[in-house]
Amino acid sequence: MKRNDDIDAFLFDIGGTLVAEAPPHTPVAELHAEVRPGVVETLRGLAEDHRIAAVTNTATMREVDVRKLLEPVGLNALLEVVVTSVDVGAAKPDPASLNEAIRRLGIPAGRAVYVGDAPGDQLAAVAAGMHFVATDRGIADAIERFTQARSGAFMDACRRVRPIEKSAARAARNRHDRLTKPAGSLGRLEDIGVQLAAIAGECPPPLPEPAAVAVFAGDHGVAAAGVTPWPQDVTAQMVANFAAGGAAINIIAREVGASVHVVDVGVAADVSHVAGVIHRKVRRGTADISRGPAMTVAETRAAMDVGASVAADLLEQGNRLLVTGDMGIGNRTASAALIASLTESDAQSVTGRGTGISDEMLACKAEIVELAASRTDGWLDPVSILSEVGGLEIAAIAGFIVGGAAAGVPVLVDGVITGAALLVASALAPGAAERCFAGHRSTEPGAAAVLKRLDLTPVLDLGLRLGEGTGACLAIPMVRAAARVLREMSTFDQAAVSERTPDG
Amino acid sequence: MKRNDDIDAFLFDIGGTLVAEAPPHTPVAELHAEVRPGVVETLRGLAEDHRIAAVTNTATMREVDVRKLLEPVGLNALLEVVVTSVDVGAAKPDPASLNEAIRRLGIPAGRAVYVGDAPGDQLAAVAAGMHFVATDRGIADAIERFTQARSGAFMDACRRVRPIEKSAARAARNRHDRLTKPAGSLGRLEDIGVQLAAIAGECPPPLPEPAAVAVFAGDHGVAAAGVTPWPQDVTAQMVANFAAGGAAINIIAREVGASVHVVDVGVAADVSHVAGVIHRKVRRGTADISRGPAMTVAETRAAMDVGASVAADLLEQGNRLLVTGDMGIGNRTASAALIASLTESDAQSVTGRGTGISDEMLACKAEIVELAASRTDGWLDPVSILSEVGGLEIAAIAGFIVGGAAAGVPVLVDGVITGAALLVASALAPGAAERCFAGHRSTEPGAAAVLKRLDLTPVLDLGLRLGEGTGACLAIPMVRAAARVLREMSTFDQAAVSERTPDG
Repeated sequence: MKRNDDIDAFLFDIGGTLVAEAPPHTPVAELHAEVRPGVVETLRGLAEDHRIAAVTNTATMREVDVRKLLEPVGLNALLEVVVTSVDVGAAKPDPASLNEAIRRLGIPAGRAVYVGDAPGDQLAAVAAGMHFVATDRGIADAIERFTQARSGAFMDACRRVRPIEKSAARAARNRHDRLTKPAGSLGRLEDIGVQLAAIAGECPPPLPEPAAVAVFAGDHGVAAAGVTPWPQDVTAQMVANFAAGGAAINIIAREVGASVHVVDVGVAADVSHVAGVIHRKVRRGTADISRGPAMTVAETRAAMDVGASVAADLLEQGNRLLVTGDMGIGNRTASAALIASLTESDAQSVTGRGTGISDEMLACKAEIVELAASRTDGWLDPVSILSEVGGLEIAAIAGFIVGGAAAGVPVLVDGVITGAALLVASALAPGAAERCFAGHRSTEPGAAAVLKRLDLTPVLDLGLRLGEGTGACLAIPMVRAAARVLREMSTFDQAAVSERTPDG
Repeated sequence: MKRNDDIDAFLFDIGGTLVAEAPPHTPVAELHAEVRPGVVETLRGLAEDHRIAAVTNTATMREVDVRKLLEPVGLNALLEVVVTSVDVGAAKPDPASLNEAIRRLGIPAGRAVYVGDAPGDQLAAVAAGMHFVATDRGIADAIERFTQARSGAFMDACRRVRPIEKSAARAARNRHDRLTKPAGSLGRLEDIGVQLAAIAGECPPPLPEPAAVAVFAGDHGVAAAGVTPWPQDVTAQMVANFAAGGAAINIIAREVGASVHVVDVGVAADVSHVAGVIHRKVRRGTADISRGPAMTVAETRAAMDVGASVAADLLEQGNRLLVTGDMGIGNRTASAALIASLTESDAQSVTGRGTGISDEMLACKAEIVELAASRTDGWLDPVSILSEVGGLEIAAIAGFIVGGAAAGVPVLVDGVITGAALLVASALAPGAAERCFAGHRSTEPGAAAVLKRLDLTPVLDLGLRLGEGTGACLAIPMVRAAARVLREMSTFDQAAVSERTPDG
């Protein structure tokens, strides 16, 4: 196990994490520890480089009782510190027991990780100021995920996302009231300008141009499960179409003056010969989510890093507005499952007809979405959920969004696929959504669920359901116009225009 | 009376037009003719160059009875032909009596004008294929209006408005289904493309560029009546602001690559010194519509001609998309009255807060709208209504719209002011609205009434209420993108992209 340089100790919850949960009200005398799979090996591996402790809620037991219980399964010797809720007189989510554990370990909270399986564990960790990792897919997966999450372009970007600047927003509102127009008469355009100022941290905000659209392409194993009438080959064929400039996104980008960048992050076919594509394939498509996990956590992380690094490259090239796009036959099914899981929505309510499918195919699709999403019931970690039911391009788009947000550049989000990615991004990097604009209202029901959850009002409502970034791209002139209004319009004083008199 | 070269005869309705309407069921023996003001003089004037006839509905009278009745007031001798509904056995709106009159006169229907006061008169004239003019504001006004309407840029344009071409629309729908995207997935953008093809009469449609925004400026006497908190001077000040490039429309037009043309058609102040303005002042603002007519029919016609000729000039300069804009303190009140009158809506329901006014001012405004609109109750002629309650810039915008429609060029219409103008335009030139796009949904209630009446779906819905053409201008990229999609996207065959298989 590679050492996490900035982590001194791992603290573990016990019931549900290290050992199976006992039924409530089991008498202490009848308790026995049934260790969970991989626990002993994982703790032994971690112990080489880290200190290990346990922090648990219990109705009756003190440290000595817990240690006695864990002795037969070989865990007691691995635990340097054990703190129970009875010891400190407060149960999680109160952080008292976690605080006591790190006091005894003599380390700062920021250098400890709490590993647990329940929302109360996460809340206690947050309250104690320590890292948290959930055992959604087992303890070994949790530790691997945590370790990987400590590095890479995505995590670097996450750490750099700052809250938007409210003082710049206020300055923009004030400036709007001085411009030669009735106050508020430019409606949403004024709101967009205010948000641009808040994102940039200055008023007037810089002109958000040039604009770059990144179209991330990936395939989905679920495409073979009867959720789409389109052959999987179409993903690769469309990558070639994007590269040749003949797809809808090329035409719309040309109209609004944006550049298009096509990224292969997970196309099933080999497209390495296609010129003009950014080749960053992590894996040849996901596995079929109707049968099991889409991909591993490591692959998910790698795809997120691709997205974040593509964002960094485009920003390095001077772009000042990032636009999200997607291509992937079957990716509406993955997005629906992801949205159902992350918004705790009914699968039926977030599954749409996509590119236009029959009632029968829709029913099959909804059943698969339900099945896949149900495997993540109770899961806490967005990356685990993304690995289980998501897609390579969706992971990359989440990384791309966070990459833009980290740089203080506005990000224009498209429809249901990139909306699902935005849900992941904002769960991992709080504040990312405040740096995004929803370009349009897709007709896909999942897109509506995302907008509602993140409280976003789309710029356009044109009944689009194509993806590729087309809806977001059409919103570019509105976003640029909003910045221009604040930058270029005359004030009443400058233009010698009289102001309104009091009414009546 | 100047001769109408292409008109041989004027036919007149009698009751309500030549003489006062008798109460229903008056016995024939008790009938006597009470001639209406100006009738004898007008008919004598007309008789110098035209043939004169009368066509009337009656319960009992034949030609001889009618002639006897009209003898004492000097009208009988002026009438070459008299046909009653009893003579032909059918009452208006059945055209039998009009057909009989022109048969007896021996002229084609297209060279005759029927002059009446009721909807049934108009319907009969349309069914008979002859011109119609309503006596809303008296008989002298009707004949003057008709004579003026036979010439000028506006009438020339009206005659050239053709129905859109359905075969081009079908070709565009078919082409959309061959492009590399799921059928229908570009939503409204596809509809806009289809309409562009129908307007141009070819598929793919030409790219609608360059785009030109014309901002017509005019003042309103009603501004002094407490309907707006803005001083009237602001109209002239904003004209200078437009010319200097500092207003919202300048900034938005710059963003979308459109040119801005400011036209003084009725500003109260002298702005003849302002460079960069197209100076076509017809009159220094309208009269106060809370007290009487806004302007004369001749002034209205002149303003409509200004609009049509500005359209012709901009088209001559190579522009291929016309965008309507307006400026005029008080013009929301005039527009509301016009919309109330033309859509037969309740004044309250079409009167809005405009640029943001108090409850008290809103109540005053609605009262004035009600008062002005009620003066046009039962009127049939859009130009009469426009003269009574409209504005110079509104008349010019109506002319501008018809000028664009006549040339087969698409016209992008803005909010409530230009919407009111579109109502007038489509009443005078049927088919004009089919050649227009509603750029956006203004928050003004009158705008919603126009959209509903003309069955238009706006491109954008951004909560704008500024006018100047700002909302229409923001829609330009969508309209251009719609044309580009049909012109530039690859088909499935061209891009070697597989098509969908049957579902299931």
